[in-house]
Amino acid sequence: MDLERSPLARPFPQMPPIAGVTLRVARAGYKAWDRADLTFVELAEGTSVAGVFTTSACASSEVEMGREQVKQGHARALIVNAGNSNAFTGQRGREAVEQIVGQVSGALHCGSEEVFVSSTGVIGVPLPKDKARAGVEAALAADPCGWEDAARAIGTTDTFAKGAVAAAMLGGTRVDLAGFIKGSGMIAPDMATMLGYIFTDAAVAPAFLQEMLAKANDATFSCITVDGDTSTSDTVLLFATGNAGTPLLAGWDDAGADAFYAALLEVCRELAQLVVRDGEGAQKFIEIAVSGAAEDSSARRVGLAIANSPLVKTAIAGGDANWGRVVMAVGKAGEPADRDRLSIGFGGTWAARDGQPLPDYDEAPVAKHLEGEDVRIDVDLGIGSGRATVWTCDLTHGYIAINADYRS
Amino acid sequence: MDLERSPLARPFPQMPPIAGVTLRVARAGYKAWDRADLTFVELAEGTSVAGVFTTSACASSEVEMGREQVKQGHARALIVNAGNSNAFTGQRGREAVEQIVGQVSGALHCGSEEVFVSSTGVIGVPLPKDKARAGVEAALAADPCGWEDAARAIGTTDTFAKGAVAAAMLGGTRVDLAGFIKGSGMIAPDMATMLGYIFTDAAVAPAFLQEMLAKANDATFSCITVDGDTSTSDTVLLFATGNAGTPLLAGWDDAGADAFYAALLEVCRELAQLVVRDGEGAQKFIEIAVSGAAEDSSARRVGLAIANSPLVKTAIAGGDANWGRVVMAVGKAGEPADRDRLSIGFGGTWAARDGQPLPDYDEAPVAKHLEGEDVRIDVDLGIGSGRATVWTCDLTHGYIAINADYRS
Repeated sequence: MDLERSPLARPFPQMPPIAGVTLRVARAGYKAWDRADLTFVELAEGTSVAGVFTTSACASSEVEMGREQVKQGHARALIVNAGNSNAFTGQRGREAVEQIVGQVSGALHCGSEEVFVSSTGVIGVPLPKDKARAGVEAALAADPCGWEDAARAIGTTDTFAKGAVAAAMLGGTRVDLAGFIKGSGMIAPDMATMLGYIFTDAAVAPAFLQEMLAKANDATFSCITVDGDTSTSDTVLLFATGNAGTPLLAGWDDAGADAFYAALLEVCRELAQLVVRDGEGAQKFIEIAVSGAAEDSSARRVGLAIANSPLVKTAIAGGDANWGRVVMAVGKAGEPADRDRLSIGFGGTWAARDGQPLPDYDEAPVAKHLEGEDVRIDVDLGIGSGRATVWTCDLTHGYIAINADYRS
Repeated sequence: MDLERSPLARPFPQMPPIAGVTLRVARAGYKAWDRADLTFVELAEGTSVAGVFTTSACASSEVEMGREQVKQGHARALIVNAGNSNAFTGQRGREAVEQIVGQVSGALHCGSEEVFVSSTGVIGVPLPKDKARAGVEAALAADPCGWEDAARAIGTTDTFAKGAVAAAMLGGTRVDLAGFIKGSGMIAPDMATMLGYIFTDAAVAPAFLQEMLAKANDATFSCITVDGDTSTSDTVLLFATGNAGTPLLAGWDDAGADAFYAALLEVCRELAQLVVRDGEGAQKFIEIAVSGAAEDSSARRVGLAIANSPLVKTAIAGGDANWGRVVMAVGKAGEPADRDRLSIGFGGTWAARDGQPLPDYDEAPVAKHLEGEDVRIDVDLGIGSGRATVWTCDLTHGYIAINADYRS
């Protein structure tokens, strides 16, 4: 099944090289496709690493190893296999990952704990060791490539390559951040795992890098959903080479830490939103802003309950300002809420305030707003100061077509 | 939009009269439809009542009042309004319910706390008091009707009338249980709230009636899902008139209590499954049996995570034995699980055991099973003795058509 480019796609941005980061791709041939499907990123000595991983209790070997590896805080290489997720493959799957790690650490003369591996694609089929070995061999010898080549090579059912970039000034020196990501459904283990990688030439201590990534993740990757499903392989890794020559950032009080975090947040938000923009069958990008919640975390859970509601998502698909479905989703979120203080709006127009429909509610501007590609839903719970913004897409016939009519 | 009768529908069963229960219907005209939309059930003096209600934090006035009323344990009347849910209507909505309660309690010379009211239909529009008053007046004067008439009158987007019946022998005397229910999506506040009512001529103390209903609810109504959405109005009420003349059941040690509970469970299970069988767009009825969980409650949550997964539901719609999506759903459930002990099967054939695909897995019988209307998924977590069975339906283009293409 050939998937058409998402109508919500964004062009791939201009992205600068990051000192200490070298990208290469190769063809391992994990599937019968005519494209590179193995990505190899070589990282300068001394590169710090941080990572966030799926909370799935059935995570892949790659994720299990990554969770352990990230604790020591350093990385020299990343390998991403596309076309086979190696998930649910037991010991044989684990052996394939260990083979890749051994091969790369041997070539780079680094520790095995410094070689990170991700895989995405069909599950239940152990990653073929022979293809992996030949693919890694080819990647080690390949010419360096650009960001978009790498972004394409990690994709599976993605309909467009996804990248984001930002910069920050640390003292008088500029550092760059560049990232790419794959993912289209959110998130199916056999086709649409979210894998994201961000690189910077700033120098950041591993523990602080992890703290910043976890914080940024809470406000970005943890705030998106396409269908509420969670992959066994979801991974975001952040690498800091330190090759820009800026002073080491080790805590929030260090000069430039706030500026760096702001840039990181920008890259994470853009990457997260790009995944939603490639949501299976998506025709509309939906931003849901929740305010007045008991706490920020409560606001996020309310937002995700709305974002995951099939009834809300189908209403938006149909251009229907159905605030009743939003009330329903708020009610089921299991978070503090008071029906008589709840307000709901679309595109900046309140439809209901303090638990009652507005008597002079004019649906015309709302209907016009819902005709557009970008939809905004505002929800004010009216009980506190917690707030969060989450992003999702609509639920359309296209989603059913991709996931039901097409047999993997 | 005219909805076609669900392909999974069941014929309305033969249901006996229940001594002490008198059914009447009338036309209040809440919507411009040519049918009865107000149901009035008169109950003999001394009738016990129990109830379970939506956990929504944004419940309707009817639910808020019902939660309070059920505590005193007795009922003389039930009124169900179809076409207007009266949810999210603030004080004006509450006044309409109080008017109905006053009108009925006045006619029956009973306490206002003994008159139960439910409403289902569009939200955000206060129940029109004039129509309610005239409708109740007509219902009070109407000739008694049968179960199927009442089952039809409480329906909204239901495509078939839903009833269930069972009997138990208490000592040498037979008691009957009869129930009817409405609901098709699970569960939208503006169209498809689940409202269920069960009646028996057994004599049961209110506290024990409540205990049995709560227990049966855990294994039936709480084990179904169509789209994971929860209504602001979901209600199940159980009325015991005592008119069969059997001894009062007041606890599990009373003779016949187990037999009565078994019959109650049977009615609840059938009613719950009928709601799934009318799931919006449903083409297949899916039973998911989870075993080997840490606890029964954990098994249920895992089962519901599978049942609510759009990726699992679309796979079944497509006749695809995609056990990888089941692994994903188990992993995201947030319950204890071990990837390497997990087994998954379809229609009695294991596809994966102990965390790995079976080497001799024959997909042919599974593919044949998935062609049928009734699909069974078995999941063995392999870590404990907890088990649960949940029921859902597939996710099809029909669901999108009903909820997105149709504007309410």
